Amino acid sequence: MKVVVLCSGGMDSVAALYWARAHHAVSAVLSFDYGSKHNHQEIPRAVEHARLLGFPHRTIRLDFIGQLFASDLLKSGGDIPEGHYADDNMRRTVVPFRNGIMLAAAAGFAESAEAQGLVIAAHTGDHTIYPDCREDFMRAMGDAMKAGTYAGIELLRPFIALTKGQIAAEGARLGVDFARTWSCYKGGAIHCGKCGTCVERREAFLQAGLVDPTEYEATPPLPDKPVEHKGAK
Amino acid sequence: MKVVVLCSGGMDSVAALYWARAHHAVSAVLSFDYGSKHNHQEIPRAVEHARLLGFPHRTIRLDFIGQLFASDLLKSGGDIPEGHYADDNMRRTVVPFRNGIMLAAAAGFAESAEAQGLVIAAHTGDHTIYPDCREDFMRAMGDAMKAGTYAGIELLRPFIALTKGQIAAEGARLGVDFARTWSCYKGGAIHCGKCGTCVERREAFLQAGLVDPTEYEATPPLPDKPVEHKGAK
Repeated sequence: MKVVVLCSGGMDSVAALYWARAHHAVSAVLSFDYGSKHNHQEIPRAVEHARLLGFPHRTIRLDFIGQLFASDLLKSGGDIPEGHYADDNMRRTVVPFRNGIMLAAAAGFAESAEAQGLVIAAHTGDHTIYPDCREDFMRAMGDAMKAGTYAGIELLRPFIALTKGQIAAEGARLGVDFARTWSCYKGGAIHCGKCGTCVERREAFLQAGLVDPTEYEATPPLPDKPVEHKGAK
Repeated sequence: MKVVVLCSGGMDSVAALYWARAHHAVSAVLSFDYGSKHNHQEIPRAVEHARLLGFPHRTIRLDFIGQLFASDLLKSGGDIPEGHYADDNMRRTVVPFRNGIMLAAAAGFAESAEAQGLVIAAHTGDHTIYPDCREDFMRAMGDAMKAGTYAGIELLRPFIALTKGQIAAEGARLGVDFARTWSCYKGGAIHCGKCGTCVERREAFLQAGLVDPTEYEATPPLPDKPVEHKGAK
């Protein structure tokens, strides 16, 4: 199937790009610049992997999000909270309906590019504090994309049953160089090691039994419970 | 309910704005500039009605559509076809997943603006050549917006059972000055009278038993069948 891959430059979506290359015909790699503090660090990683694999890359600018929406994830918002991702304060980093907006724009782009599918790296660890990561949202949005396009664009979620650790293992198996991916919400020169995404990044490598190639300002804290080594199926 | 109204500046969505004013608390009026040939004529009409009624107006620029998508409706596309809207050649004016993209962006905006509903002027005459006007798309997209936002944003379609003629009658009853609305896809100095939207505009006024206040370059042809005078319910 001809597919467009949503790739932010983070570890999950870069792994999804390598998965798509192995299983489908990749028409294009798509990133979104929505005015977040870390887009300028993420997107060049997506560009780099697209170039490495020989696929066209496009960045879609969603300037209205930075101009009109309220979220601490945005350059226009407050400081990124520190601590584990699941904490309540991470709600401040929600960008309202971000996945809905990115999927809708990508569906229109995919239809224009004569693709039949869209690949997104949604996974089992996506947080239910984000309503647009929940299963009932994803299912309805997939239905809307199918019904609202001539091609009946299909939403592919190859990692939906995997943890972030399992995605890391699968990505490593597919040849992803994770040193060339970005997670940190703060978007500084190197990963901060304190925000929720840095903490989860480090946990994912631990769970996958991989060496974490990331340079952190401060080493992210280990989780309270011992890490289960899961590996990819 | 606090609502955001999608208003292009066309006759249906301006009528929807007046309907929303009568039945809800309007937080904001939202237009989209997606690089079409007629946005520059439409949007000022939406701004004008928002100002008349005292509501804030915002324009969301979707530049990526004009840059990356293929459609004759866009400045980047070919000529607007002439003749009745239902003709096959109108398919060239489809902007892939346009309604999906506008609704998704509006849902995020509405959540940020602390509204609970979105009003769209979808109606029974919307053409099934546009997949993102079909009922199954609208239902799925409404579900996605509800599931993907904290507020459970509701998609309101007050005109879904009305014809364009009945909307014109309802708009007139609510005080809409239709001379201050724009339909023509060509986006010239005045309405061309030849494109599908001009033909439908004239038919709507006929069906509503209203005087058509529009200045056309060429008087749009009357439909083959006698026009049924329907009026609003």
